[in-house]
Amino acid sequence: MASIFSKIIAGNIPCYKVAEDEHFFAFLDINPLVKGHTLVVPKREVDYIFDLQDEELAAFHVFAKSVARAIEQAIPCKRVGVAVMGLEVPHAHIHLIPINKESDMIISNPKMKLSDSEFASIAESIRKAWEK
Amino acid sequence: MASIFSKIIAGNIPCYKVAEDEHFFAFLDINPLVKGHTLVVPKREVDYIFDLQDEELAAFHVFAKSVARAIEQAIPCKRVGVAVMGLEVPHAHIHLIPINKESDMIISNPKMKLSDSEFASIAESIRKAWEK
Repeated sequence: MASIFSKIIAGNIPCYKVAEDEHFFAFLDINPLVKGHTLVVPKREVDYIFDLQDEELAAFHVFAKSVARAIEQAIPCKRVGVAVMGLEVPHAHIHLIPINKESDMIISNPKMKLSDSEFASIAESIRKAWEK
Repeated sequence: MASIFSKIIAGNIPCYKVAEDEHFFAFLDINPLVKGHTLVVPKREVDYIFDLQDEELAAFHVFAKSVARAIEQAIPCKRVGVAVMGLEVPHAHIHLIPINKESDMIISNPKMKLSDSEFASIAESIRKAWEK
């Protein structure tokens, strides 16, 4: 059965997309720790990130870097943090989290509630920065 | 001035080393969230991970994968989580954290206190798995 992320990539579940190329896809986390919290996934459905072949893992992180650069431009932050846990959705994903202090990366922090228009506006800002 | 990690790499500050190649170095976090919590750093002192060139970033993550595979063999865990914050030490570093549940990745969790012999034993187990 397709993972929720594969359904998002296929357009069967809506998302706030921020970047896409032939192999990878990035969209806003719907339960963000902070504004601009983004998930980056490979289109090929692999559960565990370290089961990606070296070349694919390398390309995945280079793509994530391009998204992080766009987040930096769109969202005021000191830098973009990276987190991979992967025990909840069986489809490898990198969290990109714009942070101003290390505690912004505490994954148990309360999640933000944003409106549809706020999500759409954030996604558009990051997407425009990424497309430059 | 050399970062604390550069001093560790140079051998001027002791560490529990688990892996090293020409460009990268891995050693146990001295304030671990869990047993086997490891830091991976590039020998070239770059503050922000996304300031690494694409090829270096790619190689960094492929090296980290090799260390994660060794951690999996040495430490009972469901998988190895990844975190990069980078606001405290100005030398890019990847945290590799063997996890059994997502909450093992909460960076504000209390740190473990291990004895010198416990650190040495954990490092040796990971190093032996990495060298295979």
